[in-house]
Amino acid sequence: MERRKFLKDTLKVGLGLTAGLAAGGISFASTKSAPPLPWPYVKLDPKKIADYAYSEFYRHECCNAVFSSIIRELARKVGEPYTNLPLTMMWYGGGGIAGWGTICGTLNGAALIFNLTCKDFKPMIDVLFDWYQKTALPTYLPCEGPYCKKPFPKSVSHSPLCHVSVQRWCKVASVYFGRPILYNSKERSERCARLAATVAAKAVELLNAYHFEGFKPHKVKGAQKTKMDCRMCHEVVMKEIS
Amino acid sequence: MERRKFLKDTLKVGLGLTAGLAAGGISFASTKSAPPLPWPYVKLDPKKIADYAYSEFYRHECCNAVFSSIIRELARKVGEPYTNLPLTMMWYGGGGIAGWGTICGTLNGAALIFNLTCKDFKPMIDVLFDWYQKTALPTYLPCEGPYCKKPFPKSVSHSPLCHVSVQRWCKVASVYFGRPILYNSKERSERCARLAATVAAKAVELLNAYHFEGFKPHKVKGAQKTKMDCRMCHEVVMKEIS
Repeated sequence: MERRKFLKDTLKVGLGLTAGLAAGGISFASTKSAPPLPWPYVKLDPKKIADYAYSEFYRHECCNAVFSSIIRELARKVGEPYTNLPLTMMWYGGGGIAGWGTICGTLNGAALIFNLTCKDFKPMIDVLFDWYQKTALPTYLPCEGPYCKKPFPKSVSHSPLCHVSVQRWCKVASVYFGRPILYNSKERSERCARLAATVAAKAVELLNAYHFEGFKPHKVKGAQKTKMDCRMCHEVVMKEIS
Repeated sequence: MERRKFLKDTLKVGLGLTAGLAAGGISFASTKSAPPLPWPYVKLDPKKIADYAYSEFYRHECCNAVFSSIIRELARKVGEPYTNLPLTMMWYGGGGIAGWGTICGTLNGAALIFNLTCKDFKPMIDVLFDWYQKTALPTYLPCEGPYCKKPFPKSVSHSPLCHVSVQRWCKVASVYFGRPILYNSKERSERCARLAATVAAKAVELLNAYHFEGFKPHKVKGAQKTKMDCRMCHEVVMKEIS
């Protein structure tokens, strides 16, 4: 089928080129465009996606780990249009966007996947973000690496922000390891690698449910998600500053 | 120069097709994927991009306004691979991602553009984010709409977060308009539409400088950007809670 599709596309491109060259290339360059969203989704294996996201974290950080682990698999199973997306385009999201500590990169990467594959992507984002801020994470267990056989500390972030999420984990981990665990420590990197794997798997579970099990995502109300009531993040501050 | 580049690319594609067809298309089809990043950038007009971003805000919100205003123009001037990106893929970033108040959508959209077009994208993000949090915004003046002829309030966000940035503007605007300006007000929407236009223009100015004027972006140090020192956001809180 791919072969037939390719030959069909080849013919189109061939004709396009002829027309394009005749017109000096201008018409051809301006006509082709991406198919409208949402793009087709096929059922994926959360465990397989998580394993790849874990390894991808150590190459292109948290956001790209979640994004590319899912897109790479959709490109393999569906082909175009997913093959047209560059697999390192979400590298910028690492560390809350280039280390700015804003949105957790794993959530930014997953949110883009929902936008690409779900008509009703906003409630999907609500469900994932709400789960993220209320769940003790990371839960993913790697098959290899220095920490794979040992238990590993988890924390509840109470926020979708990288800064708050990392800071809360570092506090728990410092008690767990009996020494200060800093932002630039190996343990923190391992935590974020496991978090990327955990969130990638959760995103795939939600996508499988949405597309194949009739799952209806629920909206999270304004005050709960926009933190316009200030407390959820800000009680952390009060403790730190007082 | 663009025309010459297109004809050169056309020849490449033509040769690729010949080779591909000779090999039954399979090798060509199976190897087909997005070209590696960064993608070619051509000089754009900040004013033209800003005008489109302003109108696009009212269709697909802040993040998509910045992203699609630039990608749409690159798709017109460069063609592929930009034509392969769906123009609503960053809709999810609106309101700090689906209304969660995290990263300002205008910055998330611009950061993706930098990842797509700049080898050294992280310092470019640093320069934009640092300018955003230190500058009185929005500065864009629309040609039409209910507020186009009147002066309009500006505020300094001291943060790249939607929640902090919007909240600070609402405080300034409430004084300016002499009545409470809330998150869901028309004035707040107009502010974010102008902010999208302002940030889109700034992103294009930085891209033009980076690619054509030898501009070297500077890194912003950890404590200044990740807010691990807590104060920049948290002094807001202290005022609110005390």
